[in-house]
This record gives sequence, structure tokens and C-alpha cells, in this order.
Amino acid sequence: MELGLIGLGKMGGNMRERLRRAGHTVIGYDRNPDLADVHSLKELVDALSGPRVVWVMVPAGNATKATIEALADLLDPGDVVVDGGNSRWTDDEQHADLLGAREIGFVDCGVSGGVWGLENGYALMYGGRPEDVAKVQPVFDALKPEGDLGAVHAGRVGAGHFAKMVHNGIEYAMMQAFAEGWELLEAADSVTDVREVFRNWQQGTVIRSWLLDLAVRALDEDEHLTSLRGYAQDSGEGRWTVEAAIDNAVPLPAITAALFARFSSRQDDSPQMKMIAALRNQFGGHAVTQAE
Amino acid sequence: MELGLIGLGKMGGNMRERLRRAGHTVIGYDRNPDLADVHSLKELVDALSGPRVVWVMVPAGNATKATIEALADLLDPGDVVVDGGNSRWTDDEQHADLLGAREIGFVDCGVSGGVWGLENGYALMYGGRPEDVAKVQPVFDALKPEGDLGAVHAGRVGAGHFAKMVHNGIEYAMMQAFAEGWELLEAADSVTDVREVFRNWQQGTVIRSWLLDLAVRALDEDEHLTSLRGYAQDSGEGRWTVEAAIDNAVPLPAITAALFARFSSRQDDSPQMKMIAALRNQFGGHAVTQAE
Amino acid sequence: MELGLIGLGKMGGNMRERLRRAGHTVIGYDRNPDLADVHSLKELVDALSGPRVVWVMVPAGNATKATIEALADLLDPGDVVVDGGNSRWTDDEQHADLLGAREIGFVDCGVSGGVWGLENGYALMYGGRPEDVAKVQPVFDALKPEGDLGAVHAGRVGAGHFAKMVHNGIEYAMMQAFAEGWELLEAADSVTDVREVFRNWQQGTVIRSWLLDLAVRALDEDEHLTSLRGYAQDSGEGRWTVEAAIDNAVPLPAITAALFARFSSRQDDSPQMKMIAALRNQFGGHAVTQAE
Amino acid sequence: MELGLIGLGKMGGNMRERLRRAGHTVIGYDRNPDLADVHSLKELVDALSGPRVVWVMVPAGNATKATIEALADLLDPGDVVVDGGNSRWTDDEQHADLLGAREIGFVDCGVSGGVWGLENGYALMYGGRPEDVAKVQPVFDALKPEGDLGAVHAGRVGAGHFAKMVHNGIEYAMMQAFAEGWELLEAADSVTDVREVFRNWQQGTVIRSWLLDLAVRALDEDEHLTSLRGYAQDSGEGRWTVEAAIDNAVPLPAITAALFARFSSRQDDSPQMKMIAALRNQFGGHAVTQAE
Repeated sequence: MELGLIGLGKMGGNMRERLRRAGHTVIGYDRNPDLADVHSLKELVDALSGPRVVWVMVPAGNATKATIEALADLLDPGDVVVDGGNSRWTDDEQHADLLGAREIGFVDCGVSGGVWGLENGYALMYGGRPEDVAKVQPVFDALKPEGDLGAVHAGRVGAGHFAKMVHNGIEYAMMQAFAEGWELLEAADSVTDVREVFRNWQQGTVIRSWLLDLAVRALDEDEHLTSLRGYAQDSGEGRWTVEAAIDNAVPLPAITAALFARFSSRQDDSPQMKMIAALRNQFGGHAVTQAE
Repeated sequence: MELGLIGLGKMGGNMRERLRRAGHTVIGYDRNPDLADVHSLKELVDALSGPRVVWVMVPAGNATKATIEALADLLDPGDVVVDGGNSRWTDDEQHADLLGAREIGFVDCGVSGGVWGLENGYALMYGGRPEDVAKVQPVFDALKPEGDLGAVHAGRVGAGHFAKMVHNGIEYAMMQAFAEGWELLEAADSVTDVREVFRNWQQGTVIRSWLLDLAVRALDEDEHLTSLRGYAQDSGEGRWTVEAAIDNAVPLPAITAALFARFSSRQDDSPQMKMIAALRNQFGGHAVTQAE
Repeated sequence: MELGLIGLGKMGGNMRERLRRAGHTVIGYDRNPDLADVHSLKELVDALSGPRVVWVMVPAGNATKATIEALADLLDPGDVVVDGGNSRWTDDEQHADLLGAREIGFVDCGVSGGVWGLENGYALMYGGRPEDVAKVQPVFDALKPEGDLGAVHAGRVGAGHFAKMVHNGIEYAMMQAFAEGWELLEAADSVTDVREVFRNWQQGTVIRSWLLDLAVRALDEDEHLTSLRGYAQDSGEGRWTVEAAIDNAVPLPAITAALFARFSSRQDDSPQMKMIAALRNQFGGHAVTQAE
Repeated sequence: MELGLIGLGKMGGNMRERLRRAGHTVIGYDRNPDLADVHSLKELVDALSGPRVVWVMVPAGNATKATIEALADLLDPGDVVVDGGNSRWTDDEQHADLLGAREIGFVDCGVSGGVWGLENGYALMYGGRPEDVAKVQPVFDALKPEGDLGAVHAGRVGAGHFAKMVHNGIEYAMMQAFAEGWELLEAADSVTDVREVFRNWQQGTVIRSWLLDLAVRALDEDEHLTSLRGYAQDSGEGRWTVEAAIDNAVPLPAITAALFARFSSRQDDSPQMKMIAALRNQFGGHAVTQAE
């Protein structure tokens, strides 16, 4: 089938390639003309036969919103827009309403798989009305991994991004789990070769997982990770997961710990620990470490 | 080769079976005569030709200590004792010293794999002197999973149990990660079929893992886990992991959160939350919920 | 001076009393006619001479919003509305804009002190333009505690509720601190009389505080808090504190732990711990506790 | 009465002074001859009339152990040793047994009050047999604050240090509470003058406390704590509190969060966050920050 694809960055570009390998016709637009097949949204829309499916793969927030608003003016009733970016699930209903007012369908789709998706396929979680999802199905089928699993219609509009958000929340805590264990093994002097322990955990253990495989890859590149700083970004989904939990009065201690560890990692110096140091000095005369 | 195996419970019994399938001669002792091949430790020792390898697979703590003390009196110089139970790594050096005084070798071995180990093999992490490990190697080779991985000589005496302990600490936080995500998906009304989301996460996602596969199995047996109580034991390794982290000044927020969640799960009513309720009532006149 | 006071519940009623004792004229309105001095907002507004100050002390959210919207229609330019309820700081700017469009001033005021405020005075944190604050100042002076402290102009509109919100976040973690310590002392068998330890901590220690005094009061009423259930509500400010922290990438592990402990306390059974139990059963054949 | 006091550092020196002001005779020994009244433990013991009371105020661990062993050889039946240092409660029973074998009494005493104790008095929590405590009572009465509170016989040997340990655990979480709140107020731009908010919280609020008073003192010396590094030591009691909680299966999320925050504050770079960065790079191609 034909697909319009907006956003040809690291993710979008690989997705175009995987879809073309599967025999689909992909017309791609990107603000960067070197990446693009067409050079305006209008050109993209004109190049597609109806009912059109247009997949938006741009940064969450204003960029996605502006793109969807522009598409609302260009598309026709019966067309479908897919938001495959990392949008907050609370944005989806607004986008669906905007498009729905013009009888344009909307599907939100969380996409997992990173740089490995081109070869391995992308895990997909999507939300929307069945009739809209049906129009995108051949694209989902081409993007997903081989086998029976890896793509799920999670519910109504918003459910795809919600499921992907929770996936990422789980991912945060799993990464933190391996990171904590690795630091402890490196800090204690009991285990001689931590990397070999990680490597052998890949078979037969309870914790075998793709993230463990990736940890071994990383340690094979740099056994003690000495070339890296302990500095980790967060991309929105972790924060939203905690906020959704608060809205639902669900305790998420491990996922939140993982999020806060990332926040701390980005502070050159911790303001709260300055206050701890100041209080210790006030009551106990404990020495404080002066800032340089 | 010949192996003496002490402790033929769920784990030990399956290990005997896997070793026999691999062609080894296993003489098993258990306090339960229905399970045992021989009916005393002395009989077990007498039945083995030297240099003997005796694998202890009994509960950590006093049972393991008593067994090793008894073996110290029965075995000969050059024999080797393997502690394959869930002993605390700090016990290993004492056991090694006790046996070493009689020139008996000691190897500690953490074993992962649970009820799946019989078919899939057991992941093994062991510590000890190379000459002692060498005597046990055919047994390790038969117990481990197919393939190159799943068994590692982690370092000196104690390193095997230390590595297994950290494995279990990581396992605690990974389980907590999936549990938190599942509760959030069930609590929010966005995703229609949480089980199908979990099932499809098994391919293409960042969080694909054996624990995820097991979660899907559990949900297939009982979609909303309504037949279970939210009550989780802990087995020692989680506690020891946190204590080892404290000894090394390593922060373990996610693993500790997972441990504390299990503690809380076993309280019929939370004493600390009684105090919170009492304080709210004191300053704000907030209603309290009376105990029945 | 004259004050219109809307909402005469536990807090509002006591504040009216404290203001009257200080010689101010308070005209109170409440939906409950038994509590009210006047029987409609219109009557309240008509009874006040301008420039009027009207203090809103009703539940945060829709009730506060509706009251402010009604006042916008009834008041005159130059009048001032004070929101003394537990509104989220993000509501304040909207309310200020709504009133400002009619040249009515707005001050948000966080109020601490609970049932003790009538006698001890209320701590006040307020935000708004200096000219609006000035019109309310005599009311603030009468409500605040004796002495130099206890009332602060924290900044622009929203700053009062923001400061009060953080106060409550700190309060959550302080309460949790005492609750955790109390549970540990009660659980261990080392200390014979936990209540006497708490009582004596009230002098000379680093942790002496009003909350400690209240804990002693509570223990004097019920030494082991046996009459209470470990069930704690949360009132919004704790959640908003965590959300504000997420917005600012500030790690709040202790405050968040306190919030999550309250969430957990309200669950009859923990869904996430059902999943932990299910996973342990899957890989280890560990016994699970069946729901009754 | 007469007291032998061993250890005349910051705490011990001030305690000697407070006891002398109360009319007691204090004979002090310290390895530093400039601080000492006598120049050996033997000289100290010889200078006291029996039944002697000797207060040990030296660093916990080996120094305390060695001092008590030396006193066991020097003292007579009926004498009493007080350990007023920050010993782990698990050491107390051993020390009591050692001394008890020679019919010398033992009392463990946790002391709170820091550099303020000289003027304000020290809060005291002690454990031991009533007959031993009775011999020390005049010293406790002189050290404690004015008023009825501040000194408590908490139970048998070990109970004093246990109670002090939990006091410090609570203190950790309370300090963390204020530190988190302060960082959030400083990070958000809503509140104009955070220090004035803290100052005014000292009256009428739920969180008024000595630690809040000290925070205001610290901010008065350095409004934004710019001269300090966010680097906080921990002194043992926080760690032991968490370990005692683990032994008793008591969840301590806030106290543990406070302990871990201190651990993190002392790391130049976080190993675990290197692993997080490495994993993000592996699956997502996310940029990593190179170590310099």
C-alpha cells in the first residue's frame, strides 16, 4: 500500500526502509530536503491516492501538534493520520477530536525497537477505532517483528501511547536494576570479572533479557564504562508514567527511583545535599566541604 | 563422574535427574528416606571413590553449616565440597577455612533456574580455587544450559554466592518493574486488554525478557490474578544485597524499593500508617479509620 | 476591618472566631444555613463596604472555581478575593486573570495550623500584587501566630499556594520519618517502652518538633495505636509536590516515598504484589497465598 | 559525684564542662595530653573512689572496644562503665558480658545534642540493669536538658544505642525532607524569597522544628548555600537503622532514601548512571556524554 511518512530522522528513516523492503510505497517528507522524497506536506498529500494513510513521526509536543493541524487542512474525509511519535497520551484525544471534526481518522501508535528495529522489526502498540486501525494494518504488519507477537491494538485513542509509556516506565526500572547490580559488583571486591558474570547470566538465569544482552555489548566495548559519564537523559515517558500513577493512586517506587536517579545524574552538584551538609554543620559542627 | 548430592528437594531432586541424564553417577542423600539413595552421610561418603566431590543442596544457615561440619569429619584430604544452596557469601569463607584445615577443598555455587532448570539447564556462578573448581567441572558442564554461556567462575571463595545474590537483587527490581507497570495498566482505563499488551511486548520491545514471558504465562492462567493474594515472601538474597550495598556505600533505590514492597505485602495492617493516621488526626482533626 | 468569609467548615469557622476575637467584623457565608451569617453570596457582597475583601475557604477545585466565578460577577473594581483553600497553584493564575479582567484583585493564601490554629494562630503564605496584599494585611495579622513569624508574602500570584504545597510535601516526609522510626522501635524487642522514648525525645534531641509532640499526644491516647487502621488519605498537595518536582527535574525520593506509602495503605490487596507472587510461582514453584 | 571521662573531643570536652558547672567532679583522660586531666587509664581509675563510674566517649568500633577491654582489667567489681559513644547496639551485649564476667556493670547511652548540648543539655537514651543505671543517675541528671524530659531508661543493655540509632534514622529522613523542599522551592520560580518562607515556617506550621530553625540559621549565613558542596557524610547510625529494619522486615523507604542520597552525594560520577547511559546508547543510539 501507499503511506505518507512525515519525519525521516533516525527512527522515521529506518521505518521507511523497512516498509519499502516489504514492498510498500512510502512517500517521505522531512524538513531536511536531503532526506525527503517530497518537499511540502501538500506535495505529500497530493502524491497519495485516497483513502490516504499519513504517519507522523516527529518530536512530541508542538511539532506533532503543528503537523496534525496542518494535515487537518490538507486531508479528506476517510483519510487516517497515525501519530507514531512519543506523544503524551493525553494529547491524543485532542488530536483525534481535531481530525474527527473533519471526518479524518486518528490512530496513536507507540513504537519500540530503537536502532534495531530496521532489522528486527518494531514493537507496536496502537489505539483507535477499529475502522481506522484497519486502514493502517498492512503498515503495522510490515513494521512489526517476524512471528505472531509484537503488535497489539491496545484500545481506544490514547491507549497505544499509554501502553508505550508504561513500557518505557518498566524499561526505566529494568535498566536501573541492571545498573544497580553492576555498580555493586564493581564496588565489592568479591567478583573478579564482572563482565564475565554478566555475559554468563544471558543463559539459564531468571534475569535473562534483551537489556542484559545490550549490557554485555556495552561492556564488551568498554569493560568498566570508563569512557562514559554517569549522565542520563529522560525522554518524557518516565515522567508521564509517574504522573499517571499519581492520578490513579498507584505506588511506583522502583520506576520513580529510576526516574529520580536520572534527574540526579544531571546535576553538577546537588542542592538538596548542600542543605544536608549545612544542617549537619549546624547541629553537629560537622565539617562541610566547601565549593571550589 | 561420581557425585554425592545432599538434599533432594525440589531443586536437588531435579539436579540429580539432569546429571543422571548426562551420564553421571549421582548418589543422593536426604533426610527423607523416600527420596534418598543412601541413608546417612557416612554411607554417602563411603560409596564414593576419591577424590570425592560432594554437593550440598540444603537450606542456607544452620542446615548447611551442620552438613559441612559433618562432612569435614567424614571426608579425606583432596576431596571437594560444593555448597550449591542459597548461603550468604559471608558464610563461605568460614566453611572454606573449616574444610581447608583438613585439606578438603570448597567451592560455593549460586544456582539459578528454578523449576525450569531440569529441562533448560541451570545458570551457575561459582567461586573457589581453580584446582577445586576443576574437580567439579564435569558436574557444572552437565548442569548448565546448552550453549557457551550460563556458567562462570566468578572469583575466589564467596564470589559465586555473591554473584548469585546480586542476580537475585536485580531479579527483585525487574519483577517489581513489571508488577508496577501491570498495576498501572490495570488501574487506568485506557488499555482494554492488558494481557494482550503484555503478550505482544514479548517481541521487538526493549523489555522483552524471560520474566515477561513468565508474566504472560501467569496471566494466561488467571487474567487479573484474582485468585492470588498480594503477598510475597523474600528469601534472603534481597536483604543481603541491600546490606552489601550499605557496606559499600552503593545506592540501590530500585532494588531496595522492591524488597520493602515485599515486606509491606506481608503486613496485615501497617504500623507506620497507623502513626500517619494518628498524626493527621492530631493536627487536622482528620477522620481516622478505626480498626475493626 | 470588614471581611467576607465564604466557607465556615472546620477551618473557616475557627478563622471567623479568631478574627472576631481580634476585633474584626466577619460576615460569613456557608451553604449550611446553620453556620452562616448571610444566606447568599449576593447578600454577603452587599453587606460589605468597599473596597471589599472576600476570603474563599471552600474545597479546592470545582467549588473554589465556581465561587470565584460567582464573585467575579458580584464584586466591583478594587475589591480583592483571597483564596485561602488548598487550591493547586496552577489554578491561581487563571483565577487572577478572570478577576483581573474586571479589575478585581486576587491573593492566594496557603494556611497551615489545622484545629490548633484558633488558639495558636495560623501560618500563612500568600502570593499576589503588593497592592492587593496590602488590603488583606489586617486579616493576615489577626490570623497569624503571636510573634514576628508565621506570615510571609511569598511572591506573585500562585506563590502562596506553591509554598504551602511544598510545606505539605515536607510534612509528608517528616510524618513518614516518625512513622518509620516508631514501627521499627515497636518491631524490635530492644526498647521496652517506645512511648517513653518518644516522650523524652521532645527535649534536647535533633528531631524535636511539633509533629513529635503530636505523636506523643497520640501515643498517650492509645499507646500502641491499636484502635486505628493503617489507612491514610492524601489531600492533593503531596501529589502536586511530586508533579512540580518532575516538572523541574528535582529528585524527591523521601517525599515521594511518603506519598506512595499512603497510596499503598488504602489498598485492600496490592495488585503489584499479586504479580510478584505470580512470577515467583512461575519460575520457582514458590507457594502462593490464595485469595479467600 | 565523681566521674571518670575518657575521650575529651568536641562532645566529651563539652560534657565535662557541663558536668563541672553542675558541681560534679570530672577526671578526664584523652590521648591528647593537652586536653587531659590524667595521663593514663590507670591513673584515671586510681584517682576515682569506688564504686567508680567511668564514661567512655571515644569513636565507635575498635577504639571503644579497646578502651572497655582495658577498663575490664583495671576496674573492680561494683564499678560501672558507660559507653556514651555512637556504638552499634549489637556491640553492647558483648561489652556487657566482658565486664559482667568481672562483676563490673555496663550502661550504654545514646547522646544527642551536638555542639548545642553544652548550653541546652543533651538528650540521653540509656540501657542497662536498674542497679547500674542508678549509679550513673546524677550524671544523667546533670547532662540532660532542663525540664522533665530528655532522658530515658529505654530498656536492657543495648536499648540506649538502639533508641539513639532510630533517632538518627528519623533525623536523616527529616533532614532529607527539608532538603528536598528547599531544592524544589529554589528550582521553581514561583517563590521569590525562599529563605523568608523558611523563616516564617518557624511559627504556626505543622513542620516547625529545631531542624527548621537550624535551616534558617544556615540560610542566614549563606542564602543559597553557594559556599557548600552537596556532599554529605554518614556516620553509621543511618546504615544500622536500615539493617535493623531489614532484620525485622520493616519497610523504611524514606529513611533509606535519605541514606542513599548521601551515598550518591559522595560519588564524583555515578557508576550506575554510566550503565544507564550505555544501555540507552545501545538500544536507541542516544548520545552519551563522554568522560573528560
